[in-house]
Amino acid sequence: MKLASINNGTRDGKLVLVSKDLAYYTDASFLAPTLQAALDDWARIAPHLQALATSLDHGAVPTIRFHEHEALSPLPRAYQWADGSAYVNHVELVRKARSAEMPESFWTDPLMYQGGSDSFLSPRDPIRMADEAYGIDMEGEVAVIVDDVPMGATIDEARDAIRLLMLVNDVSLRGLIPAELGKGFGFFQSKPSSAFSPVAVTPDELGDAWDGGKVHLPLSVDLNGKPFGRANAGIDMTFDFPKLIAHAAKTRPLSAGAIIGSGTVSNKLDGGPGKSVDEGGAGYSCIAEVRMIETINSGTPQTPFMRFGDIVRIEMRDSHGHSIFGAIEQKVEKYEH
Amino acid sequence: MKLASINNGTRDGKLVLVSKDLAYYTDASFLAPTLQAALDDWARIAPHLQALATSLDHGAVPTIRFHEHEALSPLPRAYQWADGSAYVNHVELVRKARSAEMPESFWTDPLMYQGGSDSFLSPRDPIRMADEAYGIDMEGEVAVIVDDVPMGATIDEARDAIRLLMLVNDVSLRGLIPAELGKGFGFFQSKPSSAFSPVAVTPDELGDAWDGGKVHLPLSVDLNGKPFGRANAGIDMTFDFPKLIAHAAKTRPLSAGAIIGSGTVSNKLDGGPGKSVDEGGAGYSCIAEVRMIETINSGTPQTPFMRFGDIVRIEMRDSHGHSIFGAIEQKVEKYEH
Repeated sequence: MKLASINNGTRDGKLVLVSKDLAYYTDASFLAPTLQAALDDWARIAPHLQALATSLDHGAVPTIRFHEHEALSPLPRAYQWADGSAYVNHVELVRKARSAEMPESFWTDPLMYQGGSDSFLSPRDPIRMADEAYGIDMEGEVAVIVDDVPMGATIDEARDAIRLLMLVNDVSLRGLIPAELGKGFGFFQSKPSSAFSPVAVTPDELGDAWDGGKVHLPLSVDLNGKPFGRANAGIDMTFDFPKLIAHAAKTRPLSAGAIIGSGTVSNKLDGGPGKSVDEGGAGYSCIAEVRMIETINSGTPQTPFMRFGDIVRIEMRDSHGHSIFGAIEQKVEKYEH
Repeated sequence: MKLASINNGTRDGKLVLVSKDLAYYTDASFLAPTLQAALDDWARIAPHLQALATSLDHGAVPTIRFHEHEALSPLPRAYQWADGSAYVNHVELVRKARSAEMPESFWTDPLMYQGGSDSFLSPRDPIRMADEAYGIDMEGEVAVIVDDVPMGATIDEARDAIRLLMLVNDVSLRGLIPAELGKGFGFFQSKPSSAFSPVAVTPDELGDAWDGGKVHLPLSVDLNGKPFGRANAGIDMTFDFPKLIAHAAKTRPLSAGAIIGSGTVSNKLDGGPGKSVDEGGAGYSCIAEVRMIETINSGTPQTPFMRFGDIVRIEMRDSHGHSIFGAIEQKVEKYEH
């Protein structure tokens, strides 16, 4: 199933089922008005959604053309957004660029930050910021939405709780991070509203590309229309989603609709830093990573962070080249209050 | 107005209006089914709630006995929970106990962490934890619930967005904090589910004790039936609520229903660390603080963190001795998965 929340002027949008090719949708709000409502009662509602999806496949229900720009993030607001940093390669590069040792434990104990979840952007919303000097960066990631997860869940329980997958642009303000992390309480102002892909899909939609823990497909990140990243989300993911979920649920339960992110997708090359797509490498899912590599190689970063007018596009295609989740496409604009 | 969410078996409870003396309630769910629904459309719904509150005061509507143990947290799950650390005295003590300098900027730039908001405890729920060695501690705090706040809100806009106040027990796992903060991404496992007071109140319910920014009343924190803290929430609060809200909204908007906490209420004594209630002082709103004072005075902490069976009670009384928000009362119990 592919699910979306169409902008109908309400805070949570209207639940719809989208065709596999993302061309059409059919209203699903008579089964549950919103995606959160469906997740709140998934065991009861999912079979009805599945039956409707079959009817949609067979052309047996009324359909409307699906325009990705009319979709909100699948959960326009959520009760939980916890973002891991599962591609430890990325973390190692951050450290290396500032000549800091990475603790050995980072390979066994997931890094995760608590994100804010009350004001997600829509997948085609501009990223509005007051100042370019904040160091505006994208982070291309994969995320899962889970059902209720009990405190202390096992890896198997965590895996069984995965209901939907989607993509994320975890917008980061690199200029604000050092001072904020220096205060010791983690990210806050440096992690503004994230945006998610137009569509969230059940794991079966991924076929063989989903192994129960990772998505084995490249994540396309384009910057101003040029390929910037093609890193494979299934490679170098040190902690898979069940591990991230179990980490998040160690001392508290997670509620249905909780979103758990992978962190910036990042691939090594021959055990070292990657190369740009231009040079035949897998590229990068955020600007910070190429800046770190530039710093390691030449002492200073060359690639600037995003400026007003820059556009990032994040998408994932299946082995036939078809977009699975639709595209996040966001332009950076000046915010005026 | 005093509002509560009665446990009716749903995830968000049923919205009710509670009498000023907390003795009775009347169903308000015909106006908005849940507190979040009321907050989503506050400008339209609040006047109707106000009219119902007047009828409740006059005995003109059916009432049911209000039992605090039947109340969920006013928002049993929320889209945003951001907790400040506005009593910088508390932060200074933390640093002093580990002989670390506190940066001067801590007096001008609020500390705030992003909390998880999908699984709040009810005010009388036990605090269930797998292991006493986590270092289970309470943190008695005041919190506000806001309406929509635009990104970059001014202090005045922030003040005008405050809709409700309540108390919090921001449960903390002291044993997990050093390792987690050492990883650099802030709190996650060390901040399990918080609990809020049975009732949330509009600012006018506080009368002169609310000055638009702070609550000028002592916060009662009792541990195992003995007075532990009586710190005045209006004293030594370096950053008032409008400042905390504006800080939270610097790079993103806040959505209606967002909860902003004060951090552990803490009073100095003659410019230095406080004294216990026994010794005539204002005491402490968390165990960590007395342990820090013990460390500063004698080199090692003496007071243990909470153990299975321990009970914390957090309440605030008006100048006539009447409970304003009802009491958070939680027993620590062993969690078995």
